[in-house]
Amino acid sequence: MSVTFPRGFWAAGAAAGIKPSGASDVSLVIAQEPLPTAAVFTQNGAAAAPVRLSRRHMEISGGAIRGVTLNSGCANAATGELGDQAAVDMAAAVAREVGCEVSEVLVCSTGPIGPQLPMHKILPAMQLLVARAGSSQSAGREAAAGLMTTDTFIKEAAVSGPGGFRVGGMAKGAAMIRPSMATMLAVITTDAIASAQRLRGVLSRAVEETFNSINIDGCESTNDTVILMASGLSGIQPSPGELTKGVRKVCARLARDIVADAEDCTRVVTIQVSGAPDDGSARRMGMAIADSDLVRCSFYGGDPNWGRLVAALGACGEPMDASRIDITYQGTPVARGGTHTGVDLSTIEPLLVGDFEVEVVVGEGPGTARILTSDLTPGYVIFNGEPS
Amino acid sequence: MSVTFPRGFWAAGAAAGIKPSGASDVSLVIAQEPLPTAAVFTQNGAAAAPVRLSRRHMEISGGAIRGVTLNSGCANAATGELGDQAAVDMAAAVAREVGCEVSEVLVCSTGPIGPQLPMHKILPAMQLLVARAGSSQSAGREAAAGLMTTDTFIKEAAVSGPGGFRVGGMAKGAAMIRPSMATMLAVITTDAIASAQRLRGVLSRAVEETFNSINIDGCESTNDTVILMASGLSGIQPSPGELTKGVRKVCARLARDIVADAEDCTRVVTIQVSGAPDDGSARRMGMAIADSDLVRCSFYGGDPNWGRLVAALGACGEPMDASRIDITYQGTPVARGGTHTGVDLSTIEPLLVGDFEVEVVVGEGPGTARILTSDLTPGYVIFNGEPS
Repeated sequence: MSVTFPRGFWAAGAAAGIKPSGASDVSLVIAQEPLPTAAVFTQNGAAAAPVRLSRRHMEISGGAIRGVTLNSGCANAATGELGDQAAVDMAAAVAREVGCEVSEVLVCSTGPIGPQLPMHKILPAMQLLVARAGSSQSAGREAAAGLMTTDTFIKEAAVSGPGGFRVGGMAKGAAMIRPSMATMLAVITTDAIASAQRLRGVLSRAVEETFNSINIDGCESTNDTVILMASGLSGIQPSPGELTKGVRKVCARLARDIVADAEDCTRVVTIQVSGAPDDGSARRMGMAIADSDLVRCSFYGGDPNWGRLVAALGACGEPMDASRIDITYQGTPVARGGTHTGVDLSTIEPLLVGDFEVEVVVGEGPGTARILTSDLTPGYVIFNGEPS
Repeated sequence: MSVTFPRGFWAAGAAAGIKPSGASDVSLVIAQEPLPTAAVFTQNGAAAAPVRLSRRHMEISGGAIRGVTLNSGCANAATGELGDQAAVDMAAAVAREVGCEVSEVLVCSTGPIGPQLPMHKILPAMQLLVARAGSSQSAGREAAAGLMTTDTFIKEAAVSGPGGFRVGGMAKGAAMIRPSMATMLAVITTDAIASAQRLRGVLSRAVEETFNSINIDGCESTNDTVILMASGLSGIQPSPGELTKGVRKVCARLARDIVADAEDCTRVVTIQVSGAPDDGSARRMGMAIADSDLVRCSFYGGDPNWGRLVAALGACGEPMDASRIDITYQGTPVARGGTHTGVDLSTIEPLLVGDFEVEVVVGEGPGTARILTSDLTPGYVIFNGEPS
């Protein structure tokens, strides 16, 4: 169940012909009136046209958004003025069909960077999406399918909160996943009652521990966007804590699916950092470990090569004392006080056959973070080495 | 020709038995009296015991150094107090044999992080090295061989400067190569007359454009060290510019060899950045491009995937205007003003079969940098995924 699980949302997906394969490549999530909405976007300095347009629409509308149109197969990034116009045209086509302001429509794109969108295919598809939009579960699933690039499965999630308010969401991932203050494309819906301002706080808290705590390849995208819309149709006004909990659950599920579906990855590794001066420092240390090619190669090999984690921590620029680092692989202490515990590493290798967890204690501070990453595999390199 | 090319240096290499393979794993470079010496070290917060010891010896001796002892097969990093004592014992063993202060000996180690050095094998080897040290070309070559870890060839270089002063050097590389203010292990010798203070300036300038401008895998090492010693035995006192030129030539040759010998790389790619606000900014942008797994995958595939370069630039935190980026692959313009020039990318692929160059213009500033990197290959991942 996805974005149509909460009451008050209609969705659709279709194949507009952007992808040569003929697979689904456009999606729409729409409501019957402008809804309180929050959004976070990539911090990338080369942000794509749809990101820049959606940021502007959030400002103009004051966070009152009628719908989101999305496409895969083309990121509409590094596309100049032609690309800017294409993003506006996508929003305008939807606005015309549903009868709203252009600034009440957000636009998300994902796919290769550089090519221009085939607008002669996309504009008719926008009409089709509005006509087909439905509130059924399958309509939500179709919308989630329209986001997929190299994803191998549809990413959707849904939960109910106290009193029966609902939260649903869809996302896409696959690669170029190293969110910074934002994430890949995701649309989260809820039928809870909440103002746009409250949603901003809820989304920012939920994203920090979910989408902002995953890292597949250290590559921050030009198109990352997460949107949260609230219809209020449940009639329930949950506390900020309750709503954050619901939204975080949906985000966490989608974030984990993104890592599990990393291009050609063979396992998900959880890096649990604690003892840092604060949570931000812990997150930067965990991300530095996940950024390291040599660390992710060792994850691929199921090799408890803890020395590479120490080197990554030392290089990350965070204040640290190498003689205070403890490292535990899947429950077995491997390093204490920055040196080897003496455990025979070959006895740990059998514990590292599937997904596993690495605990890293960097000192005695209160800061913690939980980072999800995938391994770096020969398949990832071959896949991303092929001219597209 | 290597460290023994300049007059006044003796060298040796030997197999102490640190490496299970029985290959050469210890080296020595020594002079007949303490010489003016400069050194730069890794900025890694988890710097290895030999790095911390050598830093201290440079301070105590005021840059008057008799010799350098080096080992491969074990980084002596993350080894606690035992590791600190081992580094001191290596220096002391050499000092005792040659009859100098312990603080006049520098120590370098390279290899896996975590294991302790087998001191019962190393201490007798220190004696042997001093006894065997010679000033022949082959003695220099033996010393260079003793540095090798996963290197596939010996890295040495030598040049003569105006008036006949000489500069020679040796280095090791292979992986965990992302120098920051320093580099991998390298010892550079010269018979020019120069004070330790002058050598510091020369080394810092030479390293910036050579060792600090290469990047194999974005992983900064715990053990990076470059040492420059001057015997003065040529009787020539070159200008700082002449000496820098000679030292830079030797460093550049060693740096390029390090990239060419990157673990399982198939090509060297030169990233030429210009138009940045200053050289430092240009270097950080070039390094960000080389840091990107997706970019280095595209280098492996010979794919002119310029959009990934734009995304890497946007993510690197340097001030930039994405609409000002020009990208040229091997002489063919691919992007101008941040968008595709329209060139058929498949016509460029045949140009990218071997080593190639990518030019990136990021604006109109005076800053430039030239970064050497290798491609990310399935072989690198397999090699570094195997438990060691």
